[in-house]
Amino acid sequence: MFESAEIGHHISRKDYKQQEPLLRSALLEAQYALLAQGKTPVIILVNGVDGAGKGETVNLLNEWMDPRHIRTEVFGPPNEAECLRPQMWRFWQVLPTKGHIGVLFGSWYTDPILSQVMGHEKRARFAQRLERIRQFERMLVAEGAILIKLWFHLSKAASKARLKALEADPKTAWRVTSDDWAHLKHYDEFVQVSEKALRKTSTGEAPWLVVDGQDPAYRALTVGNYLLEALQARLAGAAPVVPVAAPVAKPPLDGRGLLGTFDYSRALKPKTYDKRLELLQGRLNQLTRDPRMAQRSLVIVFEGMDAAGKGSTLRRMTHAIDARHYRVVPVAAPSDEERAQPYLWRFWRHVPPQGKTVMFDRSWYGRVLVERVEGYCTPDEWMRAFDEINDFEEQLVQGGAVVVKFWLAITQDEQLRRFKDRQATAHKNFKITEDDWRNREKWPLYEHAVHDMIDRTSTDVAPWHVVASNDKLFSRIEALTRVCERLEQALDSGV
Amino acid sequence: MFESAEIGHHISRKDYKQQEPLLRSALLEAQYALLAQGKTPVIILVNGVDGAGKGETVNLLNEWMDPRHIRTEVFGPPNEAECLRPQMWRFWQVLPTKGHIGVLFGSWYTDPILSQVMGHEKRARFAQRLERIRQFERMLVAEGAILIKLWFHLSKAASKARLKALEADPKTAWRVTSDDWAHLKHYDEFVQVSEKALRKTSTGEAPWLVVDGQDPAYRALTVGNYLLEALQARLAGAAPVVPVAAPVAKPPLDGRGLLGTFDYSRALKPKTYDKRLELLQGRLNQLTRDPRMAQRSLVIVFEGMDAAGKGSTLRRMTHAIDARHYRVVPVAAPSDEERAQPYLWRFWRHVPPQGKTVMFDRSWYGRVLVERVEGYCTPDEWMRAFDEINDFEEQLVQGGAVVVKFWLAITQDEQLRRFKDRQATAHKNFKITEDDWRNREKWPLYEHAVHDMIDRTSTDVAPWHVVASNDKLFSRIEALTRVCERLEQALDSGV
Repeated sequence: MFESAEIGHHISRKDYKQQEPLLRSALLEAQYALLAQGKTPVIILVNGVDGAGKGETVNLLNEWMDPRHIRTEVFGPPNEAECLRPQMWRFWQVLPTKGHIGVLFGSWYTDPILSQVMGHEKRARFAQRLERIRQFERMLVAEGAILIKLWFHLSKAASKARLKALEADPKTAWRVTSDDWAHLKHYDEFVQVSEKALRKTSTGEAPWLVVDGQDPAYRALTVGNYLLEALQARLAGAAPVVPVAAPVAKPPLDGRGLLGTFDYSRALKPKTYDKRLELLQGRLNQLTRDPRMAQRSLVIVFEGMDAAGKGSTLRRMTHAIDARHYRVVPVAAPSDEERAQPYLWRFWRHVPPQGKTVMFDRSWYGRVLVERVEGYCTPDEWMRAFDEINDFEEQLVQGGAVVVKFWLAITQDEQLRRFKDRQATAHKNFKITEDDWRNREKWPLYEHAVHDMIDRTSTDVAPWHVVASNDKLFSRIEALTRVCERLEQALDSGV
Repeated sequence: MFESAEIGHHISRKDYKQQEPLLRSALLEAQYALLAQGKTPVIILVNGVDGAGKGETVNLLNEWMDPRHIRTEVFGPPNEAECLRPQMWRFWQVLPTKGHIGVLFGSWYTDPILSQVMGHEKRARFAQRLERIRQFERMLVAEGAILIKLWFHLSKAASKARLKALEADPKTAWRVTSDDWAHLKHYDEFVQVSEKALRKTSTGEAPWLVVDGQDPAYRALTVGNYLLEALQARLAGAAPVVPVAAPVAKPPLDGRGLLGTFDYSRALKPKTYDKRLELLQGRLNQLTRDPRMAQRSLVIVFEGMDAAGKGSTLRRMTHAIDARHYRVVPVAAPSDEERAQPYLWRFWRHVPPQGKTVMFDRSWYGRVLVERVEGYCTPDEWMRAFDEINDFEEQLVQGGAVVVKFWLAITQDEQLRRFKDRQATAHKNFKITEDDWRNREKWPLYEHAVHDMIDRTSTDVAPWHVVASNDKLFSRIEALTRVCERLEQALDSGV
């Protein structure tokens, strides 16, 4: 893939001087137009061989366009907070918001490629990480981002000549470090591994542009024109390349759904409840203090119809855990900062570091439940959400998390009983709103959505636990038991 | 201050069992009412002697109230990102939003007290840090927060007895570390220093509550009732204790203001400009690469009337600096997450770590300019902002920053000329709006506001540079010169 970047491209100084001002003002105009629209984030990845003009290009982009609306990020080795979370976490934290440009110097490609070159990771792992990246980039593009992937190339001979030239001049000799010579030694492996990475990730929706880095004028104009074309195409109305959604899932032909056939009748006596609760809370407390938890985290998701008992079940768990070790995230409408990001961004914000627990009172599953049923997102969006969610949870698990997901299942009759009870009780009055009654009318639609959700996102690494919750006592004990079991299993197996 | 916490307070188990459920449901009700209002953040500081029930209290608060709307934060030694910024930065990052409760286990008191006890800091520095805290807390309360400061006390004898008891039981012996015995050795100094800290910071708006930590029942009810009373008082309409604003500043009696008497006539020829620009940009580039910059940061503030040339001056600086080392923050309307925090929060977010530069295109001075003139905040608010801003900038400087503030000064005639020019030029059209014309009508009010601002916030550590900007070339050169001078001065003096 690098052949054409070694044939000695060149632009004359005269041509450059003529073209650069036009390009520059066109880029600035396109930047302001996209900013005014406020719909499209632009993500520019700057990767490639050392000395091929990466830093110069980053500076140039900031010089050509308005730097007030560009966010430049450099990625070195991960810091402490980053090491304790899934590998992609650090990139989620710095995604540009809609209308803005993010220039990433070094990116999600840097570590997979270097780990492979240095022999720190097996080939299979490398392939997995590239697949993860494909998925991530597909999501970014589907969420409306313009993704520009630049690879700056320099031949081995040119790389060597460059280092020698720098060393020969006393003014620049300090810029050459022993690392640079070490990198040159690995040049062939680096190019070979990079070639594979580019090949596997040059997709229709997010292709690579390989740039010959030797001639500054050629390099600059090539990058500038490529970027300009992408921005102008979007401004002219070109839609982002989005995967076409498969036909929307229909309810099963025989009308039998997961929730309709569920056994809601299980219950517990208060005495049994009291005894078991104390035992389970003690067990959970011990588990969260287990020294092996330092490398694990715990992510608990509570979903269920209104009044299913999410809050009260959750509290039986928080009571068992030291407040310094957990955080609860109640999920309501997104803030405007969250709306300016891809859908999952607001959950990535709350991914716990190893050693900690986060409980979500409602979660990312809103996408395939309320947002689907109410039409807040398109079928394309919620259909791809299943896949994106599975990928998200797999990343959590690979980062050390135990992911426990609860659907607290109640019947429509039981919900009605609880609504009426809430209305009758003064201090529970605030818990029942118009919305609750409205949602209730859509019960069959929600049942179908839940059916699909469990079918499509109950995975090996993050299975759903459907808990009979008509009886609150049984529900709490059941949920606590599942959390303890899943934690024990994870700590014992080390997986 | 600790005398009354050593007289052996005690609540019987029976009384506790009777009072606790009532307290608990009252607290929960108050929490939900404050959440529904969404106006008041509640900040609870948990400090005191080891073993006096701090951790237990944190857990209890989370148990009594709804943990979904409580954010518990533990402060250990600062991490890397925190070490590179002003000391208070880490606390700004975790302030609870309006309607929510933040429980801070360890707080801004921990480090000043321990540093003093361990002899790491001089007495004068301790006094300074306490004064900083007074100022910070005064701001929090004025911004509407309920600030609950709890100090848990245990006598020396009780502390010793506690450690011995823990050690005697094989099940709890592991909880006693050599650190615990070391802390006990310093008990007297710790109490003495703490006493001074409490005395100096027990203000009318943010008093301390010292709690006898020996009896769990007494401790719990004392804290619970105190908190409940504070929440209920606010719900009943009690206003936060806010400093009474001094009379609003009037324009000088003779009508002479800083901007009215300013010399706007200075100008440069294009040739001189080109030559100086190149030299200054080279100088700035060298300065930002100086190894001594690793311990410094650079904060540049651009303010000025509309069309004063903030953007173009700023770009002459970014062109000189490597894009990896600076960030530009354009300040517009706050996001809803920012509105849920004290005024300065949205600027603390962008405080650069040592080694980096941040340029603000408009800034925290909006409070005393547009917000004052347009009446977006009350006179009380902008009058105290002067003081809060000076304190903020002093903290930046103490954290290693060089703070350079520019007022780009143009005349009303020059502004008119530029507005007309913008309207006439197609690609500058977007830069001129109805707002700009409306603001222009308030020119005298802005002049007065600028006059006050410079008078009250041009400090020794962060002086204002008023730059004659009717001539853009002169203005850019002047601003670049000031930045270079200030940086050189700071690097050479080490201050």
